[in-house]
Amino acid sequence: MHNEFLVDFHHVAEFGATEKNGVDRQAATPEDKLSRDWFARFTREHGWELRVDTIGNMFALIELTPGAPYILLGSHLDSQPLGGRFDGAYGVLAGLHAAKAIESRLKAESQQAVFNIGVVNWFNEEGGRFAPSIMGSSVFVGSMDEQQMLQTRDLAGVSVAEALESIGYLGHDQRPEVAGYAEIHIEQGRILERESISIGAVDFSWHTQKLDVEVLGEQSHTGATAMADRHDALVAASKVILKVHDVVEHFAEGSIVSSVGQMTLEPNSPIVVARRVHLVADLRAELKADVLRARQILIGQIAEIAREHDIRINVNDFDVREIQYYPESGLELAEKTTANLGKSVRRIRTMAGHDSVAMNRIVPTVMLFIPSIDGVSHCEREFSTDDDMIHGLEVLTEIGWEMIFGALEENAALAGNESNSIHGIPA
Amino acid sequence: MHNEFLVDFHHVAEFGATEKNGVDRQAATPEDKLSRDWFARFTREHGWELRVDTIGNMFALIELTPGAPYILLGSHLDSQPLGGRFDGAYGVLAGLHAAKAIESRLKAESQQAVFNIGVVNWFNEEGGRFAPSIMGSSVFVGSMDEQQMLQTRDLAGVSVAEALESIGYLGHDQRPEVAGYAEIHIEQGRILERESISIGAVDFSWHTQKLDVEVLGEQSHTGATAMADRHDALVAASKVILKVHDVVEHFAEGSIVSSVGQMTLEPNSPIVVARRVHLVADLRAELKADVLRARQILIGQIAEIAREHDIRINVNDFDVREIQYYPESGLELAEKTTANLGKSVRRIRTMAGHDSVAMNRIVPTVMLFIPSIDGVSHCEREFSTDDDMIHGLEVLTEIGWEMIFGALEENAALAGNESNSIHGIPA
Repeated sequence: MHNEFLVDFHHVAEFGATEKNGVDRQAATPEDKLSRDWFARFTREHGWELRVDTIGNMFALIELTPGAPYILLGSHLDSQPLGGRFDGAYGVLAGLHAAKAIESRLKAESQQAVFNIGVVNWFNEEGGRFAPSIMGSSVFVGSMDEQQMLQTRDLAGVSVAEALESIGYLGHDQRPEVAGYAEIHIEQGRILERESISIGAVDFSWHTQKLDVEVLGEQSHTGATAMADRHDALVAASKVILKVHDVVEHFAEGSIVSSVGQMTLEPNSPIVVARRVHLVADLRAELKADVLRARQILIGQIAEIAREHDIRINVNDFDVREIQYYPESGLELAEKTTANLGKSVRRIRTMAGHDSVAMNRIVPTVMLFIPSIDGVSHCEREFSTDDDMIHGLEVLTEIGWEMIFGALEENAALAGNESNSIHGIPA
Repeated sequence: MHNEFLVDFHHVAEFGATEKNGVDRQAATPEDKLSRDWFARFTREHGWELRVDTIGNMFALIELTPGAPYILLGSHLDSQPLGGRFDGAYGVLAGLHAAKAIESRLKAESQQAVFNIGVVNWFNEEGGRFAPSIMGSSVFVGSMDEQQMLQTRDLAGVSVAEALESIGYLGHDQRPEVAGYAEIHIEQGRILERESISIGAVDFSWHTQKLDVEVLGEQSHTGATAMADRHDALVAASKVILKVHDVVEHFAEGSIVSSVGQMTLEPNSPIVVARRVHLVADLRAELKADVLRARQILIGQIAEIAREHDIRINVNDFDVREIQYYPESGLELAEKTTANLGKSVRRIRTMAGHDSVAMNRIVPTVMLFIPSIDGVSHCEREFSTDDDMIHGLEVLTEIGWEMIFGALEENAALAGNESNSIHGIPA
């Protein structure tokens, strides 16, 4: 099992491989199609049922108990532009090999599971090409509107529906009924590596939100227009970017992160002062109150910048994601399983969003981390060792095994979270 | 003549017209083709010879004296994205109607000119789509390399050669031999309007150069990567942009302008810290020494920003344009002609580049301005009155008339400028 997993993992890393050992496999691109075709082939070769739903999520389903709902394992095969080969792909590959091991063991032991088991490859977890991120799983759980998401466009004007259709993955299959979800992922931080711990059991996700900022100046000539007569949208936007970066200084170290990763300017000509800059600021903190305070500080500072430059700056909240607590029963199951396998485990929070955050809204969910070398992610030098991946696969297999026998069922009611609404989606 | 000019001018303004009375007619786009087709039709309908050269410059030629070189009038029909309808187009339309008037008058008076006369529509003066600007006329005078320019690509990866070919204006005609050049243009500043003067006779152009700045950070996750572990190219680039904006504070007010108008970031994803930002800074001053001092200040500040963020920032000079003095004989001709027509005139410098700056390197050249309302340009609300346009047309017609009889010939040797090299062209 271990060797087959590693062979498959490193094979999938060739789809969209970059020169520096990363992958560039953005959602619904030809590179994404390669990994999807591989997932479909794996599913068929194992005699499992393949379904593709109307937002491009792919399900590999193994019916163990006719008519029963499914325990899903999985993650996503899409990546950031010049992203790493572990983020997402590890969880899907581990899910497939865990499901395969569970199916074999059931046959060998002639046991009857309570639930069926399946593996999912969620559409567009990354959000690099189509915002917002965590799209496929959010549509699955009903927290994002499917029609709106299908009409979301990338920077080149291509819609999600068009992109999925063009690679042949705008499906029509019914979504499986689900009873539980487990996902394993690289940590993308330094905690497990620093403490030499094999497994992180995720207890809650940070509160996050984005600010959509539109800076409206006036186009003019970079040579002939006097400096005093200009309303330079890019100068004002640069001040906004620095304020977003510096806002963390108001808080305890490590309790909040903030950044601008996306920005476009118009007309983007070397000899024209920009009339419009659009940018997206990303705020994340362990405490919701901190995100709200950072937002409040920024809104005041941005208004000040607008006054100073005599231009208009529109700011809108979007993609607000409340703190999500994973069920205690799942944490205890992860701790027990890891300990039984002789490995170390600790509770950990996630600053990044994951498909499990969406799934946790509707079913008992377990989220696991393995160590990331140097804590870097969303870049080509993202790395985790084969050993750590194998440890994670063993833990996931055991947890999947327990879950198909209903390990989290009696506690399902405890999985409740405060209501999680997505406020507004970028056009 | 006046009415026909106005009808034609406002007709051409419909090609690529925008909602707010501007035009969007970037070089070698379908909108540019519309204005080129119109220029070709105008030429043929008047029985003139049309030539299109190998960089897409268009010439409407009237042979008055077989074998003699040409006095060219003209400017450019391309525009900035969401640009104004006067910049460039006014000079081409005024040139066509001045040439027409000169041809009629010669016939009516049965006079024999020393030179032929023609009108030119230069390719890609604006440089908004393909950098650098003033491309067609610079290739014409030999200060830019034609093969290199034909291979220059826009942000979508399309080359100049491909774009010209696609609209049918990659020509093969021989370039006309030229003896002199006159161009009329809107001022793009406030001086003539403020002083209620009809005509500006341009005595010299500002020293200009661009800085190509490449900020190389490291891609990482906007959520999971600790602030201290990041090398955010966009934060560093924002600091560079503000330094470029603030560098003018070291100089006397109005003596220098500086700005960043073009910028791209990679990967440009909302949840990824940028790994690379590329931007172009534009420096222009009345004194070359001021441009060099501003450049020196910026290079020091940029090195400091690179150290602070532990990233690499590459800075390269390009598109360096020395101060160009227009010949005294042309200035005197413009002053005399304007006074004879009962209009006011003053000498004025140009901060913006023009095709005449290129032509002035090889032949005696006259450059005229008419007032710009509010001094704004490269934007939709750029405006000049019909009356001011007519005044300018009258002056240009008289100057063209004098030039075909050799008015500037005896002084041609005085037109010499210091050597003007273009150092490096962006890839």
